[in-house]
Amino acid sequence: MGAYFDNAATTFPKPESVYQFMDTFYRIHGGNAGRGQYKLAAEASRILNETRKKLQNLLMCPNKYVIFTPSDTLALNIVIQGNMNHGIKTIYISPFEHNSVTRVLHHLKKLFPINVEILPSGDDYQYDISLIEQKFNEIPPDMVIVSHVSNVCGLIAPVEKIFEAAKKYRAITVTDMAQSAGLVSLNVGSENVDYAVFSGHKTLYGPFGIAGFVMKKDVNLEPVIFGGTGIDSANQDMPDSIPSRYEAGSSNIQAVAGLHASLTWLGANRDEIVEKEKTDHRKLLEILRSFPNIHIVGPRNRENCIGVISCLFDDYSPDNIGNILDEMEIAVRTGLECAPLAHKTLGTFPAGTVRFSVGYFTTDEDFDVLNKGLAYIYENS
Amino acid sequence: MGAYFDNAATTFPKPESVYQFMDTFYRIHGGNAGRGQYKLAAEASRILNETRKKLQNLLMCPNKYVIFTPSDTLALNIVIQGNMNHGIKTIYISPFEHNSVTRVLHHLKKLFPINVEILPSGDDYQYDISLIEQKFNEIPPDMVIVSHVSNVCGLIAPVEKIFEAAKKYRAITVTDMAQSAGLVSLNVGSENVDYAVFSGHKTLYGPFGIAGFVMKKDVNLEPVIFGGTGIDSANQDMPDSIPSRYEAGSSNIQAVAGLHASLTWLGANRDEIVEKEKTDHRKLLEILRSFPNIHIVGPRNRENCIGVISCLFDDYSPDNIGNILDEMEIAVRTGLECAPLAHKTLGTFPAGTVRFSVGYFTTDEDFDVLNKGLAYIYENS
Repeated sequence: MGAYFDNAATTFPKPESVYQFMDTFYRIHGGNAGRGQYKLAAEASRILNETRKKLQNLLMCPNKYVIFTPSDTLALNIVIQGNMNHGIKTIYISPFEHNSVTRVLHHLKKLFPINVEILPSGDDYQYDISLIEQKFNEIPPDMVIVSHVSNVCGLIAPVEKIFEAAKKYRAITVTDMAQSAGLVSLNVGSENVDYAVFSGHKTLYGPFGIAGFVMKKDVNLEPVIFGGTGIDSANQDMPDSIPSRYEAGSSNIQAVAGLHASLTWLGANRDEIVEKEKTDHRKLLEILRSFPNIHIVGPRNRENCIGVISCLFDDYSPDNIGNILDEMEIAVRTGLECAPLAHKTLGTFPAGTVRFSVGYFTTDEDFDVLNKGLAYIYENS
Repeated sequence: MGAYFDNAATTFPKPESVYQFMDTFYRIHGGNAGRGQYKLAAEASRILNETRKKLQNLLMCPNKYVIFTPSDTLALNIVIQGNMNHGIKTIYISPFEHNSVTRVLHHLKKLFPINVEILPSGDDYQYDISLIEQKFNEIPPDMVIVSHVSNVCGLIAPVEKIFEAAKKYRAITVTDMAQSAGLVSLNVGSENVDYAVFSGHKTLYGPFGIAGFVMKKDVNLEPVIFGGTGIDSANQDMPDSIPSRYEAGSSNIQAVAGLHASLTWLGANRDEIVEKEKTDHRKLLEILRSFPNIHIVGPRNRENCIGVISCLFDDYSPDNIGNILDEMEIAVRTGLECAPLAHKTLGTFPAGTVRFSVGYFTTDEDFDVLNKGLAYIYENS
């Protein structure tokens, strides 16, 4: 009888309809979207387009393009690398960026004369717009990249306000919604948002293999990955038409079908899902706070946070705790969670933390198992 | 009652065990491989490693690394773009390359002083090693990229001989096995093969979303995509350890499970699968050759070909035929098949061809439907 508290890595399980529709759709319509005129391929194309529309609705951006990629990481690489030809000098990032941003920039620094600045934090790790505006005034931004929600401590960034400040300098704006799409509202349709990256397999409750980015229609993004598009094949440049321009290679139609099903489920149950997550966040907080030897890191005020909580344990390293919980079949994530910058911000670098994260399918039984497991650790020490 | 003759786009259907194992594995073990210590994640890691081993066995390369990517296209981008720092001047490609190679090179030509040469063809479009050696002697190769099997006409390239000739000049060698892995033998373990790219969803009978490349252990490939790897997270360069160095982002464990199942099926039935494909190739040829108004393009001698056949139809454009066959629910591919270079070689550029391709699951009924469909076209013209 285990318990799953690693929903920030991937939500698990998925809604039953996701498993079912993926399997059924792939068995019946497993053709290659956009690669043939026949009905099997046409059905694959139809589900692709419907899924784009569902994302536009969910993210409030019918005015923008939806481009699919196999992963959030690839989407960020395309968005960041594909903007390097615009004479960018200063790139601001949030103090909580993941390696999918910081490693890309670390690489690009070797090739381009770019300077990476970190957005200043105010009290209690909270974003402070006046401090940010002041810093922008000192060193004007050319590009601003902000994770909407930290994968380490769950802090929600005020993306709309930060991008409003950034747009006074005409900076290119990018938000990574891997930990927030579908869960935390953001007006992605706003003129201030140039790019919003999403991941299918996290808060969208879809499968692995499908992610992407929303893109404003009047921005200029150079392709980073080149290949077949099923259209305009004689052209040796990538086609001008979007999304094909950024979607080289066969579409993963089975994963798209899974995302289609999860978006239908999300659309029908959105309020309940959001409310359940808040309740679960509170339950998790209560349990963790009931142990004097467990110390939650990051914001004390968790009003601006989702149910992703990083902790330190007295007398045990994060890895020790991971091993002990593993023995009890309690799934958590330990260490740096691929975000060393966030841990530097939180003062938990380099050993990292033990991260607990809830999801819609977290049960009361899971919380019981966790509570007993944690009690066992300190009873026996 | 349709018929599927577009197996070169994606094999369809898949073995029953692929659908079943993908679904079951994802339902039970849908954790994030390499992203947690707990058993769910460990099981995902185990299936990843087993699948790498199965590929090493199938491709005869236990001496090399297997790196997973979400698509063959991304694998080719990584292999080609990641080699551009080696002072490469002359890149040879086969006369049948796909846009997943030619568009990458077209882009790189704008950034690097590279020269792209096409391997010469002998009689009947066949590769002629002495002509190739002669050309290498005139303009020495720094890199040689050869599709093992043409996705347009099914011609098999003598990759081992071409790479042996290329290695006399210490050229970097790359073969794309999208249309051949598991079907046409190639000693990928040979010292002459630096990189071999594979696609999960074609001749390997796996799902979309999983592909990759085999890589020699002593070659130096720069990463192209940057991000989280679940290991060595404090390091802002991509880790030195392989495969992590080239596998940024979450693994698509469900697709890996599907490939695992298809490789098990292939391993148990390899001879039968290869034999069946040859029989189907002959049946397809017989049908097509029985119509005087249908003209097979490419090699007349099809001994060196697999069951991927491109045709021209008297009185109809390829698109016309595609539409007519679609009405009969016969799935084929028409136009340039993402390989304009191959069509230039075959003299069918820019209108392209009608391409028929068989697979293990092509049935006698499919052939009957096709035969009747083609008869109908010319009876009524």
